[in-house]
Amino acid sequence: MQEILGSLSPGQYGLVYNSFSFGVATFAAATIFFWLGRGQVAREYKTALTITGLVTFIAFYHYLRIFQSFDAAVMLEGGVVEATGKEFNRAYRYVDWLLTVPLLLIELILVMRLSRSETVSKSVSLGGAAALMIALGYPGEVADGINNTRLIWGVLSMIPFLYIVYTLYAGLGEAIKRQPDDVKGLVSLARNVTVVAWFFYPVVYFAPFVINLEGSASFAVIEVGYTVADIVAKAAFGVLIYTIAVRKSESENQSGPAMQPAE
Amino acid sequence: MQEILGSLSPGQYGLVYNSFSFGVATFAAATIFFWLGRGQVAREYKTALTITGLVTFIAFYHYLRIFQSFDAAVMLEGGVVEATGKEFNRAYRYVDWLLTVPLLLIELILVMRLSRSETVSKSVSLGGAAALMIALGYPGEVADGINNTRLIWGVLSMIPFLYIVYTLYAGLGEAIKRQPDDVKGLVSLARNVTVVAWFFYPVVYFAPFVINLEGSASFAVIEVGYTVADIVAKAAFGVLIYTIAVRKSESENQSGPAMQPAE
Repeated sequence: MQEILGSLSPGQYGLVYNSFSFGVATFAAATIFFWLGRGQVAREYKTALTITGLVTFIAFYHYLRIFQSFDAAVMLEGGVVEATGKEFNRAYRYVDWLLTVPLLLIELILVMRLSRSETVSKSVSLGGAAALMIALGYPGEVADGINNTRLIWGVLSMIPFLYIVYTLYAGLGEAIKRQPDDVKGLVSLARNVTVVAWFFYPVVYFAPFVINLEGSASFAVIEVGYTVADIVAKAAFGVLIYTIAVRKSESENQSGPAMQPAE
Repeated sequence: MQEILGSLSPGQYGLVYNSFSFGVATFAAATIFFWLGRGQVAREYKTALTITGLVTFIAFYHYLRIFQSFDAAVMLEGGVVEATGKEFNRAYRYVDWLLTVPLLLIELILVMRLSRSETVSKSVSLGGAAALMIALGYPGEVADGINNTRLIWGVLSMIPFLYIVYTLYAGLGEAIKRQPDDVKGLVSLARNVTVVAWFFYPVVYFAPFVINLEGSASFAVIEVGYTVADIVAKAAFGVLIYTIAVRKSESENQSGPAMQPAE
Protein backbone atom coordinates (compact mmCIF):
# COMPACT_ATOMS: atom_id res chain seq x y z
CA MET A 1 0.00 0.00 0.00
CA GLN A 2 2.85 2.41 0.85
CA GLU A 3 4.31 1.88 -2.62
CA ILE A 4 1.01 2.61 -4.31
CA LEU A 5 0.46 5.76 -2.26
CA GLY A 6 3.96 7.00 -3.04
CA SER A 7 3.53 6.44 -6.76
CA LEU A 8 0.38 8.57 -7.10
CA SER A 9 0.82 11.39 -9.61
CA PRO A 10 0.01 14.91 -8.34
CA GLY A 11 -3.14 14.82 -10.49
CA GLN A 12 -4.29 11.48 -9.02
CA TYR A 13 -3.45 12.68 -5.53
CA GLY A 14 -5.52 15.84 -6.10
CA LEU A 15 -8.46 13.89 -7.48
CA VAL A 16 -8.59 11.47 -4.52
CA TYR A 17 -7.99 14.27 -1.98
CA ASN A 18 -10.69 16.48 -3.46
CA SER A 19 -13.19 13.66 -3.83
CA PHE A 20 -12.82 12.85 -0.09
CA SER A 21 -13.37 16.52 0.75
CA PHE A 22 -16.34 16.54 -1.62
CA GLY A 23 -17.75 13.57 0.34
CA VAL A 24 -17.36 15.42 3.64
CA ALA A 25 -19.18 18.52 2.32
CA THR A 26 -21.91 16.54 0.54
CA PHE A 27 -22.77 14.33 3.50
CA ALA A 28 -22.76 17.24 5.96
CA ALA A 29 -25.08 19.25 3.70
CA ALA A 30 -27.33 16.26 3.01
CA THR A 31 -27.70 15.52 6.74
CA ILE A 32 -28.87 19.05 7.49
CA PHE A 33 -31.24 18.97 4.51
CA PHE A 34 -32.92 15.75 5.67
CA TRP A 35 -33.21 16.78 9.30
CA LEU A 36 -34.61 20.25 8.47
CA GLY A 37 -36.96 18.46 6.06
CA ARG A 38 -38.55 16.55 8.97
CA GLY A 39 -40.68 19.65 9.59
CA GLN A 40 -42.18 19.40 6.10
CA VAL A 41 -43.57 15.86 6.35
CA ALA A 42 -46.41 14.19 8.20
CA ARG A 43 -45.72 12.50 11.52
CA GLU A 44 -45.74 9.05 9.88
CA TYR A 45 -42.70 9.91 7.73
CA LYS A 46 -40.55 11.74 10.27
CA THR A 47 -38.70 8.58 11.33
CA ALA A 48 -37.83 7.80 7.70
CA LEU A 49 -36.20 11.25 7.40
CA THR A 50 -34.48 10.94 10.77
CA ILE A 51 -32.83 7.74 9.54
CA THR A 52 -32.06 9.18 6.11
CA GLY A 53 -30.15 11.95 7.90
CA LEU A 54 -28.47 9.46 10.24
CA VAL A 55 -27.08 7.55 7.26
CA THR A 56 -25.53 10.69 5.75
CA PHE A 57 -24.35 11.84 9.20
CA ILE A 58 -22.51 8.54 9.76
CA ALA A 59 -21.05 8.83 6.25
CA PHE A 60 -19.99 12.43 7.01
CA TYR A 61 -18.11 11.20 10.09
CA HIS A 62 -16.35 8.44 8.18
CA TYR A 63 -15.42 10.63 5.22
CA LEU A 64 -13.86 13.09 7.65
CA ARG A 65 -11.81 10.20 9.09
CA ILE A 66 -10.88 8.88 5.63
CA PHE A 67 -9.86 12.39 4.56
CA GLN A 68 -7.67 12.83 7.64
CA SER A 69 -6.19 9.34 7.27
CA PHE A 70 -5.28 10.03 3.62
CA ASP A 71 -3.91 13.47 4.50
CA ALA A 72 -1.65 11.89 7.14
CA ALA A 73 -0.53 8.99 4.91
CA VAL A 74 0.42 10.93 1.78
CA MET A 75 1.80 14.41 1.26
CA LEU A 76 2.33 16.65 -1.73
CA GLU A 77 5.21 19.05 -1.27
CA GLY A 78 7.01 21.00 -3.94
CA GLY A 79 4.97 19.17 -6.57
CA VAL A 80 6.15 15.71 -5.39
CA VAL A 81 3.89 13.05 -3.84
CA GLU A 82 5.38 11.04 -0.98
CA ALA A 83 4.05 8.34 1.36
CA THR A 84 4.73 9.35 4.96
CA GLY A 85 4.76 5.76 6.24
CA LYS A 86 1.54 6.22 8.21
CA GLU A 87 -1.23 3.74 7.41
CA PHE A 88 -4.14 4.76 5.18
CA ASN A 89 -7.07 3.07 6.90
CA ARG A 90 -9.35 1.68 4.21
CA ALA A 91 -11.37 -0.25 6.80
CA TYR A 92 -13.27 2.94 7.72
CA ARG A 93 -15.48 2.15 4.73
CA TYR A 94 -16.53 -1.21 6.24
CA VAL A 95 -17.28 0.35 9.60
CA ASP A 96 -19.42 2.92 7.78
CA TRP A 97 -21.26 0.33 5.69
CA LEU A 98 -21.92 -1.93 8.70
CA LEU A 99 -24.00 0.91 10.14
CA THR A 100 -25.40 2.62 7.06
CA VAL A 101 -26.31 -0.23 4.72
CA PRO A 102 -28.93 -1.82 7.02
CA LEU A 103 -30.31 1.68 7.73
CA LEU A 104 -30.64 2.45 4.01
CA LEU A 105 -32.94 -0.54 3.56
CA ILE A 106 -34.93 0.46 6.64
CA GLU A 107 -35.41 3.98 5.18
CA LEU A 108 -36.99 2.46 2.08
CA ILE A 109 -39.25 0.21 4.15
CA LEU A 110 -40.33 3.07 6.44
CA VAL A 111 -41.24 5.46 3.63
CA MET A 112 -43.42 2.76 2.06
CA ARG A 113 -45.51 2.73 5.25
CA LEU A 114 -46.34 -0.96 5.31
CA SER A 115 -48.30 -2.60 8.08
CA ARG A 116 -46.57 -2.61 11.46
CA SER A 117 -45.78 -6.32 11.38
CA GLU A 118 -44.50 -6.17 7.80
CA THR A 119 -42.30 -3.17 8.66
CA VAL A 120 -40.71 -5.06 11.53
CA SER A 121 -40.24 -8.35 9.68
CA LYS A 122 -38.80 -6.74 6.52
CA SER A 123 -36.53 -4.44 8.56
CA VAL A 124 -35.13 -7.39 10.51
CA SER A 125 -34.64 -9.68 7.50
CA LEU A 126 -33.25 -7.05 5.08
CA GLY A 127 -31.29 -5.11 7.70
CA GLY A 128 -29.85 -8.33 9.14
CA ALA A 129 -28.87 -9.61 5.70
CA ALA A 130 -27.18 -6.28 4.93
CA ALA A 131 -25.13 -6.35 8.16
CA LEU A 132 -24.15 -9.98 7.46
CA MET A 133 -23.10 -9.06 3.90
CA ILE A 134 -20.71 -6.36 5.17
CA ALA A 135 -19.35 -8.47 8.04
CA LEU A 136 -18.57 -11.36 5.67
CA GLY A 137 -16.78 -9.06 3.21
CA TYR A 138 -14.47 -7.59 5.86
CA PRO A 139 -12.09 -10.56 6.48
CA GLY A 140 -11.57 -10.82 2.71
CA GLU A 141 -10.87 -7.11 2.34
CA VAL A 142 -8.25 -6.95 5.10
CA ALA A 143 -6.49 -10.11 3.80
CA ASP A 144 -4.48 -7.74 1.58
CA GLY A 145 -3.98 -9.02 -1.94
CA ILE A 146 -5.38 -11.54 -4.37
CA ASN A 147 -5.85 -14.84 -2.55
CA ASN A 148 -8.32 -17.53 -1.54
CA THR A 149 -9.27 -15.74 1.66
CA ARG A 150 -10.53 -12.79 -0.38
CA LEU A 151 -12.33 -15.11 -2.78
CA ILE A 152 -14.05 -17.28 -0.16
CA TRP A 153 -15.30 -14.44 2.06
CA GLY A 154 -16.35 -12.50 -1.02
CA VAL A 155 -18.46 -15.39 -2.29
CA LEU A 156 -20.01 -15.87 1.17
CA SER A 157 -20.81 -12.16 1.26
CA MET A 158 -22.63 -12.43 -2.07
CA ILE A 159 -25.23 -14.80 -0.58
CA PRO A 160 -26.93 -12.15 1.61
CA PHE A 161 -26.42 -9.60 -1.21
CA LEU A 162 -28.37 -11.73 -3.68
CA TYR A 163 -31.01 -12.41 -1.01
CA ILE A 164 -31.43 -8.61 -0.61
CA VAL A 165 -31.76 -8.04 -4.36
CA TYR A 166 -34.27 -10.89 -4.58
CA THR A 167 -36.31 -9.56 -1.65
CA LEU A 168 -36.33 -6.00 -3.02
CA TYR A 169 -37.95 -7.26 -6.23
CA ALA A 170 -39.95 -10.32 -5.21
CA GLY A 171 -40.85 -9.49 -1.60
CA LEU A 172 -41.30 -5.72 -1.90
CA GLY A 173 -42.55 -5.74 -5.52
CA GLU A 174 -46.10 -6.41 -4.35
CA ALA A 175 -45.92 -3.66 -1.73
CA ILE A 176 -44.63 -1.15 -4.30
CA LYS A 177 -47.64 -1.88 -6.49
CA ARG A 178 -49.87 -0.89 -3.56
CA GLN A 179 -48.21 2.57 -3.22
CA PRO A 180 -50.23 5.67 -4.21
CA ASP A 181 -50.03 6.47 -7.94
CA ASP A 182 -48.03 9.71 -7.65
CA VAL A 183 -45.15 8.03 -5.75
CA LYS A 184 -45.21 4.52 -7.22
CA GLY A 185 -42.63 5.47 -9.85
CA LEU A 186 -40.39 7.16 -7.28
CA VAL A 187 -40.45 4.19 -4.86
CA SER A 188 -39.59 1.86 -7.71
CA LEU A 189 -36.79 4.26 -8.78
CA ALA A 190 -35.42 4.34 -5.20
CA ARG A 191 -35.31 0.53 -5.19
CA ASN A 192 -33.55 0.43 -8.58
CA VAL A 193 -31.01 3.10 -7.53
CA THR A 194 -30.18 0.95 -4.49
CA VAL A 195 -29.56 -2.17 -6.53
CA VAL A 196 -27.59 -0.45 -9.31
CA ALA A 197 -25.42 1.65 -6.95
CA TRP A 198 -24.74 -1.36 -4.71
CA PHE A 199 -23.50 -3.46 -7.62
CA PHE A 200 -20.46 -1.18 -7.84
CA TYR A 201 -19.10 -2.57 -4.54
CA PRO A 202 -18.85 -6.30 -5.44
CA VAL A 203 -17.51 -5.32 -8.88
CA VAL A 204 -14.60 -3.48 -7.22
CA TYR A 205 -14.16 -6.29 -4.66
CA PHE A 206 -13.80 -9.03 -7.29
CA ALA A 207 -12.06 -6.93 -9.99
CA PRO A 208 -8.50 -7.82 -8.81
CA PHE A 209 -9.17 -11.46 -9.79
CA VAL A 210 -9.86 -10.42 -13.36
CA ILE A 211 -7.67 -7.39 -14.04
CA ASN A 212 -4.53 -6.01 -12.42
CA LEU A 213 -5.63 -3.40 -9.93
CA GLU A 214 -2.39 -2.83 -8.05
CA GLY A 215 -1.24 0.46 -9.56
CA SER A 216 -1.82 4.04 -8.45
CA ALA A 217 -4.31 4.65 -11.29
CA SER A 218 -6.61 1.89 -10.02
CA PHE A 219 -6.23 3.13 -6.45
CA ALA A 220 -7.54 6.52 -7.64
CA VAL A 221 -10.35 4.96 -9.68
CA ILE A 222 -11.46 2.77 -6.76
CA GLU A 223 -11.43 5.54 -4.16
CA VAL A 224 -13.20 8.06 -6.41
CA GLY A 225 -15.62 5.35 -7.55
CA TYR A 226 -16.51 4.35 -3.98
CA THR A 227 -17.11 8.02 -3.17
CA VAL A 228 -19.44 8.48 -6.13
CA ALA A 229 -21.26 5.20 -5.34
CA ASP A 230 -21.66 6.24 -1.68
CA ILE A 231 -23.05 9.64 -2.69
CA VAL A 232 -25.56 8.05 -5.07
CA ALA A 233 -26.57 5.28 -2.65
CA LYS A 234 -26.90 7.57 0.40
CA ALA A 235 -27.45 11.23 -0.53
CA ALA A 236 -29.19 10.97 -3.91
CA PHE A 237 -31.21 7.98 -2.64
CA GLY A 238 -32.10 10.11 0.41
CA VAL A 239 -33.44 12.89 -1.79
CA LEU A 240 -35.77 10.32 -3.38
CA ILE A 241 -36.92 9.18 0.09
CA TYR A 242 -37.48 12.85 1.06
CA THR A 243 -39.50 13.52 -2.11
CA ILE A 244 -41.63 10.42 -1.54
CA ALA A 245 -42.27 11.44 2.08
CA VAL A 246 -43.28 15.00 1.08
CA ARG A 247 -45.64 13.83 -1.68
CA LYS A 248 -47.29 11.20 0.48
CA SER A 249 -47.72 13.73 3.30
CA GLU A 250 -49.40 16.17 0.90
CA SER A 251 -51.77 13.71 -0.71
CA GLU A 252 -52.74 12.02 2.56
CA ASN A 253 -53.37 15.46 4.04
CA GLN A 254 -55.78 16.41 1.26
CA SER A 255 -57.62 13.15 0.97
CA GLY A 256 -58.79 12.60 4.53
CA PRO A 257 -56.63 11.61 7.49
CA ALA A 258 -55.65 14.75 9.36
CA MET A 259 -52.00 15.64 8.99
CA GLN A 260 -50.08 16.36 12.13
CA PRO A 261 -49.14 20.02 12.56
CA ALA A 262 -45.64 20.84 11.42
CA GLU A 263 -42.99 20.80 14.11
CA MET B 1 2.65 28.11 -8.07
CA GLN B 2 5.35 27.94 -5.35
CA GLU B 3 7.20 30.82 -7.02
CA ILE B 4 4.10 32.97 -7.19
CA LEU B 5 3.24 32.32 -3.55
CA GLY B 6 6.78 33.16 -2.48
CA SER B 7 6.79 36.42 -4.41
CA LEU B 8 3.62 37.85 -2.79
CA SER B 9 4.27 41.18 -1.10
CA PRO B 10 3.27 41.40 2.57
CA GLY B 11 0.38 43.65 1.46
CA GLN B 12 -0.86 41.16 -1.15
CA TYR B 13 -0.47 38.31 1.33
CA GLY B 14 -2.54 40.19 3.88
CA LEU B 15 -5.23 41.04 1.36
CA VAL B 16 -5.67 37.42 0.22
CA TYR B 17 -5.44 36.07 3.78
CA ASN B 18 -8.02 38.51 5.09
CA SER B 19 -10.40 38.04 2.18
CA PHE B 20 -10.45 34.28 2.83
CA SER B 21 -11.21 34.93 6.48
CA PHE B 22 -13.89 37.42 5.40
CA GLY B 23 -15.41 34.64 3.29
CA VAL B 24 -15.47 32.26 6.26
CA ALA B 25 -17.23 34.81 8.49
CA THR B 26 -19.69 35.97 5.81
CA PHE B 27 -20.79 32.48 4.83
CA ALA B 28 -21.15 31.32 8.44
CA ALA B 29 -23.30 34.35 9.26
CA ALA B 30 -25.36 34.02 6.07
CA THR B 31 -26.06 30.35 6.80
CA ILE B 32 -27.43 31.10 10.25
CA PHE B 33 -29.53 33.98 8.88
CA PHE B 34 -31.18 31.82 6.20
CA TRP B 35 -31.89 28.88 8.48
CA LEU B 36 -33.30 31.05 11.26
CA GLY B 37 -35.38 32.78 8.56
CA ARG B 38 -37.16 29.50 7.78
CA GLY B 39 -39.47 30.25 10.71
CA GLN B 40 -40.68 33.46 9.03
CA VAL B 41 -41.89 32.02 5.76
CA ALA B 42 -44.82 29.89 4.68
CA ARG B 43 -44.39 26.15 4.44
CA GLU B 44 -44.06 26.32 0.63
CA TYR B 45 -40.89 28.41 0.86
CA LYS B 46 -39.08 26.59 3.67
CA THR B 47 -37.22 24.26 1.30
CA ALA B 48 -35.96 27.26 -0.73
CA LEU B 49 -34.45 28.74 2.47
CA THR B 50 -33.08 25.37 3.58
CA ILE B 51 -31.18 25.15 0.30
CA THR B 52 -30.12 28.82 0.40
CA GLY B 53 -28.52 28.08 3.77
CA LEU B 54 -27.00 24.83 2.48
CA VAL B 55 -25.23 26.73 -0.31
CA THR B 56 -23.62 29.19 2.14
CA PHE B 57 -22.89 26.32 4.56
CA ILE B 58 -21.00 24.42 1.86
CA ALA B 59 -19.18 27.64 0.92
CA PHE B 60 -18.32 28.20 4.60
CA TYR B 61 -16.77 24.73 4.76
CA HIS B 62 -14.71 25.31 1.62
CA TYR B 63 -13.53 28.79 2.61
CA LEU B 64 -12.34 27.30 5.88
CA ARG B 65 -10.39 24.68 3.91
CA ILE B 66 -9.03 27.29 1.45
CA PHE B 67 -7.99 29.51 4.34
CA GLN B 68 -6.19 26.62 6.08
CA SER B 69 -4.56 25.50 2.83
CA PHE B 70 -3.27 29.04 2.15
CA ASP B 71 -2.12 29.39 5.75
CA ALA B 72 -0.12 26.15 5.44
CA ALA B 73 1.33 27.02 2.01
CA VAL B 74 2.59 30.55 2.71
CA MET B 75 3.94 32.23 5.83
CA LEU B 76 4.73 35.79 6.78
CA GLU B 77 7.50 35.96 9.33
CA GLY B 78 9.60 38.99 10.23
CA GLY B 79 7.94 40.95 7.43
CA VAL B 80 9.02 38.42 4.78
CA VAL B 81 6.64 36.20 2.78
CA GLU B 82 7.83 32.65 2.12
CA ALA B 83 6.31 29.61 0.43
CA THR B 84 6.54 26.59 2.73
CA GLY B 85 6.54 24.04 -0.13
CA LYS B 86 3.10 22.73 0.84
CA GLU B 87 0.51 22.80 -1.91
CA PHE B 88 -2.13 25.55 -2.03
CA ASN B 89 -5.18 23.59 -3.15
CA ARG B 90 -7.08 25.83 -5.60
CA ALA B 91 -9.31 22.91 -6.58
CA TYR B 92 -11.40 23.41 -3.43
CA ARG B 93 -13.23 26.08 -5.41
CA TYR B 94 -14.28 23.54 -8.03
CA VAL B 95 -15.42 21.06 -5.41
CA ASP B 96 -17.47 23.86 -3.87
CA TRP B 97 -18.99 24.97 -7.17
CA LEU B 98 -19.85 21.40 -8.19
CA LEU B 99 -22.22 21.30 -5.21
CA THR B 100 -23.34 24.91 -4.84
CA VAL B 101 -23.90 26.06 -8.42
CA PRO B 102 -26.65 23.52 -9.18
CA LEU B 103 -28.23 24.30 -5.78
CA LEU B 104 -28.24 28.07 -6.51
CA LEU B 105 -30.35 27.50 -9.61
CA ILE B 106 -32.66 25.17 -7.66
CA GLU B 107 -33.14 27.93 -5.01
CA LEU B 108 -34.36 30.30 -7.70
CA ILE B 109 -36.70 27.69 -9.17
CA LEU B 110 -38.13 26.76 -5.74
CA VAL B 111 -38.87 30.34 -4.69
CA MET B 112 -40.76 30.88 -7.95
CA ARG B 113 -43.14 28.08 -6.92
CA LEU B 114 -43.81 26.65 -10.36
CA SER B 115 -45.93 23.55 -10.94
CA ARG B 116 -44.51 20.32 -9.57
CA SER B 117 -43.58 18.96 -12.99
CA GLU B 118 -41.98 22.25 -14.08
CA THR B 119 -40.02 22.44 -10.80
CA VAL B 120 -38.64 18.93 -11.34
CA SER B 121 -37.85 19.36 -15.05
CA LYS B 122 -36.20 22.80 -14.64
CA SER B 123 -34.22 21.64 -11.58
CA VAL B 124 -32.91 18.62 -13.46
CA SER B 125 -32.03 20.48 -16.68
CA LEU B 126 -30.52 23.60 -15.07
CA GLY B 127 -28.90 21.76 -12.14
CA GLY B 128 -27.48 19.12 -14.47
CA ALA B 129 -26.11 21.73 -16.89
CA ALA B 130 -24.49 23.58 -13.96
CA ALA B 131 -22.77 20.43 -12.65
CA LEU B 132 -21.58 19.61 -16.19
CA MET B 133 -20.21 23.16 -16.60
CA ILE B 134 -18.09 22.85 -13.44
CA ALA B 135 -16.93 19.29 -14.18
CA LEU B 136 -15.78 20.33 -17.67
CA GLY B 137 -13.84 23.30 -16.30
CA TYR B 138 -11.88 21.21 -13.76
CA PRO B 139 -9.43 19.37 -16.10
CA GLY B 140 -8.54 22.73 -17.70
CA GLU B 141 -8.00 24.41 -14.35
CA VAL B 142 -5.69 21.71 -12.95
CA ALA B 143 -3.66 21.59 -16.21
CA ASP B 144 -1.56 24.38 -14.68
CA GLY B 145 -0.64 27.13 -17.11
CA ILE B 146 -1.67 28.56 -20.48
CA ASN B 147 -2.17 25.68 -22.88
CA ASN B 148 -4.58 23.95 -25.23
CA THR B 149 -5.94 21.71 -22.47
CA ARG B 150 -7.12 24.80 -20.61
CA LEU B 151 -8.56 26.27 -23.79
CA ILE B 152 -10.45 23.17 -24.96
CA TRP B 153 -12.04 22.29 -21.60
CA GLY B 154 -12.86 25.95 -21.06
CA VAL B 155 -14.68 26.18 -24.38
CA LEU B 156 -16.57 22.93 -23.67
CA SER B 157 -17.55 24.30 -20.27
CA MET B 158 -19.01 27.40 -21.93
CA ILE B 159 -21.64 25.32 -23.75
CA PRO B 160 -23.66 24.42 -20.62
CA PHE B 161 -22.99 27.94 -19.29
CA LEU B 162 -24.61 29.55 -22.33
CA TYR B 163 -27.46 27.03 -22.15
CA ILE B 164 -28.08 28.12 -18.53
CA VAL B 165 -28.07 31.82 -19.45
CA TYR B 166 -30.42 31.11 -22.36
CA THR B 167 -32.80 29.07 -20.17
CA LEU B 168 -32.82 31.70 -17.41
CA TYR B 169 -34.07 34.28 -19.93
CA ALA B 170 -36.03 32.32 -22.51
CA GLY B 171 -37.29 29.36 -20.46
CA LEU B 172 -37.88 31.12 -17.13
CA GLY B 173 -38.78 34.54 -18.62
CA GLU B 174 -42.40 33.49 -19.06
CA ALA B 175 -42.57 32.08 -15.52
CA ILE B 176 -41.14 35.32 -14.09
CA LYS B 177 -43.91 37.30 -15.83
CA ARG B 178 -46.45 35.13 -13.97
CA GLN B 179 -44.97 36.02 -10.54
CA PRO B 180 -47.02 38.29 -8.23
CA ASP B 181 -46.47 42.01 -8.91
CA ASP B 182 -44.69 42.82 -5.65
CA VAL B 183 -41.93 40.23 -6.23
CA LYS B 184 -41.67 40.24 -10.04
CA GLY B 185 -38.88 42.83 -9.94
CA LEU B 186 -36.98 40.95 -7.24
CA VAL B 187 -37.16 37.60 -9.04
CA SER B 188 -35.93 39.26 -12.21
CA LEU B 189 -33.13 40.94 -10.20
CA ALA B 190 -32.12 37.59 -8.64
CA ARG B 191 -31.86 36.12 -12.13
CA ASN B 192 -29.76 39.06 -13.37
CA VAL B 193 -27.45 38.93 -10.33
CA THR B 194 -26.86 35.25 -11.08
CA VAL B 195 -25.90 35.87 -14.69
CA VAL B 196 -23.74 38.95 -14.00
CA ALA B 197 -21.89 37.42 -11.00
CA TRP B 198 -21.33 34.16 -12.88
CA PHE B 199 -19.71 35.97 -15.82
CA PHE B 200 -16.79 36.80 -13.55
CA TYR B 201 -15.69 33.14 -13.48
CA PRO B 202 -15.17 32.53 -17.24
CA VAL B 203 -13.54 35.97 -17.50
CA VAL B 204 -10.89 34.92 -14.94
CA TYR B 205 -10.61 31.46 -16.52
CA PHE B 206 -9.84 32.82 -20.00
CA ALA B 207 -7.95 35.98 -18.94
CA PRO B 208 -4.49 34.28 -19.02
CA PHE B 209 -4.89 33.86 -22.80
CA VAL B 210 -5.30 37.61 -23.24
CA ILE B 211 -3.17 39.23 -20.57
CA ASN B 212 -0.27 37.97 -18.49
CA LEU B 213 -1.73 36.66 -15.24
CA GLU B 214 1.24 34.79 -13.87
CA GLY B 215 2.52 37.24 -11.28
CA SER B 216 1.73 37.63 -7.62
CA ALA B 217 -0.45 40.71 -8.26
CA SER B 218 -2.78 38.74 -10.50
CA PHE B 219 -2.84 35.85 -8.01
CA ALA B 220 -4.12 38.34 -5.41
CA VAL B 221 -6.64 39.90 -7.82
CA ILE B 222 -8.01 36.47 -8.83
CA GLU B 223 -8.36 35.12 -5.29
CA VAL B 224 -9.94 38.30 -3.93
CA GLY B 225 -12.12 38.56 -7.05
CA TYR B 226 -13.39 34.99 -6.71
CA THR B 227 -14.20 35.66 -3.06
CA VAL B 228 -16.22 38.78 -3.91
CA ALA B 229 -18.00 36.97 -6.77
CA ASP B 230 -18.83 34.02 -4.47
CA ILE B 231 -20.24 36.35 -1.83
CA VAL B 232 -22.44 38.15 -4.38
CA ALA B 233 -23.59 34.95 -6.11
CA LYS B 234 -24.33 33.06 -2.86
CA ALA B 235 -24.92 35.35 0.13
CA ALA B 236 -26.31 38.50 -1.55
CA PHE B 237 -28.32 36.33 -3.97
CA GLY B 238 -29.59 34.42 -0.93
CA VAL B 239 -30.84 37.62 0.69
CA LEU B 240 -32.89 38.26 -2.46
CA ILE B 241 -34.33 34.74 -2.27
CA TYR B 242 -35.14 35.29 1.42
CA THR B 243 -36.87 38.63 0.66
CA ILE B 244 -38.93 37.06 -2.14
CA ALA B 245 -39.95 34.17 0.15
CA VAL B 246 -41.02 36.55 2.95
CA ARG B 247 -43.05 38.80 0.61
CA LYS B 248 -44.78 35.90 -1.11
CA SER B 249 -45.60 34.32 2.27
CA GLU B 250 -47.18 37.58 3.44
CA SER B 251 -49.28 38.26 0.35
CA GLU B 252 -50.45 34.67 -0.05
CA ASN B 253 -51.41 34.65 3.62
CA GLN B 254 -53.59 37.75 3.25
CA SER B 255 -55.23 36.88 -0.04
CA GLY B 256 -56.86 33.59 0.73
CA PRO B 257 -55.08 30.22 0.99
CA ALA B 258 -54.44 29.53 4.62
CA MET B 259 -50.79 29.64 5.55
CA GLN B 260 -49.40 26.66 7.42
CA PRO B 261 -48.43 27.50 10.97
CA ALA B 262 -44.82 28.58 11.18
CA GLU B 263 -42.42 26.22 12.86
